[in-house]
Amino acid sequence: MTFDNSHTPLGPGAEFDRIRRALARLGPNASGAGDDCAFIEVGAERLALSCDLTIEGTHFRAGWLAPVELGWRATAAALSDLAAVAARPLGVLTSVAVPAEWPEEHFADLMEGVGQAAKAAGAAVWGGDLVRAERVVVDVMVAGRLEGEPVRRSGARVGDELWITGLLGGPFRAVAAWNAGTEPEATARARFAHPVPRVQEGLWLKDRGARAMIDLSDGLVADAGHLAAASGVGVAIDPVLVPLHPAAEVVEEALAGGEEYELLVALPPGAGASAAQAFRAAFDLPLTRVGVVEPGAGVQVRRRSGPVNVPPPFAHFR
Amino acid sequence: MTFDNSHTPLGPGAEFDRIRRALARLGPNASGAGDDCAFIEVGAERLALSCDLTIEGTHFRAGWLAPVELGWRATAAALSDLAAVAARPLGVLTSVAVPAEWPEEHFADLMEGVGQAAKAAGAAVWGGDLVRAERVVVDVMVAGRLEGEPVRRSGARVGDELWITGLLGGPFRAVAAWNAGTEPEATARARFAHPVPRVQEGLWLKDRGARAMIDLSDGLVADAGHLAAASGVGVAIDPVLVPLHPAAEVVEEALAGGEEYELLVALPPGAGASAAQAFRAAFDLPLTRVGVVEPGAGVQVRRRSGPVNVPPPFAHFR
Repeated sequence: MTFDNSHTPLGPGAEFDRIRRALARLGPNASGAGDDCAFIEVGAERLALSCDLTIEGTHFRAGWLAPVELGWRATAAALSDLAAVAARPLGVLTSVAVPAEWPEEHFADLMEGVGQAAKAAGAAVWGGDLVRAERVVVDVMVAGRLEGEPVRRSGARVGDELWITGLLGGPFRAVAAWNAGTEPEATARARFAHPVPRVQEGLWLKDRGARAMIDLSDGLVADAGHLAAASGVGVAIDPVLVPLHPAAEVVEEALAGGEEYELLVALPPGAGASAAQAFRAAFDLPLTRVGVVEPGAGVQVRRRSGPVNVPPPFAHFR
Repeated sequence: MTFDNSHTPLGPGAEFDRIRRALARLGPNASGAGDDCAFIEVGAERLALSCDLTIEGTHFRAGWLAPVELGWRATAAALSDLAAVAARPLGVLTSVAVPAEWPEEHFADLMEGVGQAAKAAGAAVWGGDLVRAERVVVDVMVAGRLEGEPVRRSGARVGDELWITGLLGGPFRAVAAWNAGTEPEATARARFAHPVPRVQEGLWLKDRGARAMIDLSDGLVADAGHLAAASGVGVAIDPVLVPLHPAAEVVEEALAGGEEYELLVALPPGAGASAAQAFRAAFDLPLTRVGVVEPGAGVQVRRRSGPVNVPPPFAHFR
């Protein structure tokens, strides 16, 4: 998640309480908070900036990922923030800490993963920092170019339909398998180790009238909550509609699992149906309606037979 | 230190070996390396970017610094990279990891330190990322505006004189005291906890004809070595000339100690003497000649009575 200097209200949760308090202390030097990126003007150009911190022990455990996958994943996670605001990636800076006992080749592997993810998104590797530490840290700063206005979290209106790219639940299954001491199913593992930031998809959705967008890093219900809070609306998600990754076992995994790096987008009513077909043709990826924007606040997960209990999302702070 | 996409040769050391190998693998997507910042063009503007990673256990130990000092120090270290290329700071992004057991107020304190350091340098706080981890991590990305060409590490010519801002050895004494289990002398502690990036000084030195510049993060001898390697020259430093912080005990501390965030600058022969007087008047800070640029390679520490043994600088990787 990224806190920034825009004026979008923050969603609920202890992490956001901490950020709210910090921003209050910063005063006018950094007022407001809440989109996937910060937006700055440089001459006649407008840039979107974000950074995304990946830490061994918090986001992954030693042995889960090869160094090249670590580099890819950390960079893809940061690029996903650009996708969510419909910015065109320009470049990345990476700060990396690795243990002194890491073979020298591992750092080159990690940077190769950074380079591959950047290149796939049309971005350059501008530079970075390298230090040692007991545990691996990869922080990736991304910059992208905006054409006109970004898509924000705050633009959803009552009556809009909520759509998501891709299939959910793969990363949840991969982490569950690792935590159980087993090797994940290959496609679920790939969803965790090699997420694809939906950069072109985000630009395409903006052109189709996307009113609000957010990337699914915290999980569908949690991120829908951020979008609802930013837009001052309520959101209803129908769990029957949520498209499951083949490795997912129950829909709750798709509702609560994070690290998806798919996009959740609010489209005007009626715009989505034709868009979904064209989207699949363009990207070989489903675009699926999962809910609606309603009056009120917060997220309801509702099927016809009644509300659904969703396990709490991963929270950095409780 | 920062590796970047410029074409400046890297200095010696295992950290640079790792970076060289990684850059070779990245290929044309990130070719060359070596200044304090990466330089990018955005429309008609030119930006300098850098990131600087501070990690508990590597750069400081728990108990040394208050959270507000941690935030200041990490931000000042990153801003110092802008100072070294004579860029005018625009803004910062911060990625922060803190332990789950940290009081909520500590994160606000840390961000207040970030905000204070940014504000003092004329920069905004654009945003960032917050996660939990077992140890504190603060990564600060800075962006600055260049007017014309940056000052690089690579511009020193034979016959240039080497000058440094400020007094050296304070941070070395502070760390030595902490490592010995005692509280550092107050002014030495302040040099470690509250370093001042020499932003205006760097711009001023550029206007006075600075040919090459680097900030002293690794230590005078180590950073002089980076400047020498980048410029394809040798450097001789006279230890008798090195201005010592009052808390420093022997000159070796000023030669080898890092985390100074002062500037080392190559000025054309004869330009420095009048500059030094005007510099002191402008900034209430000494500008001191410490050596010369010679034919050859590497750094020699020479006094009239013969060469001096310098303890090895801190190296992230050996």
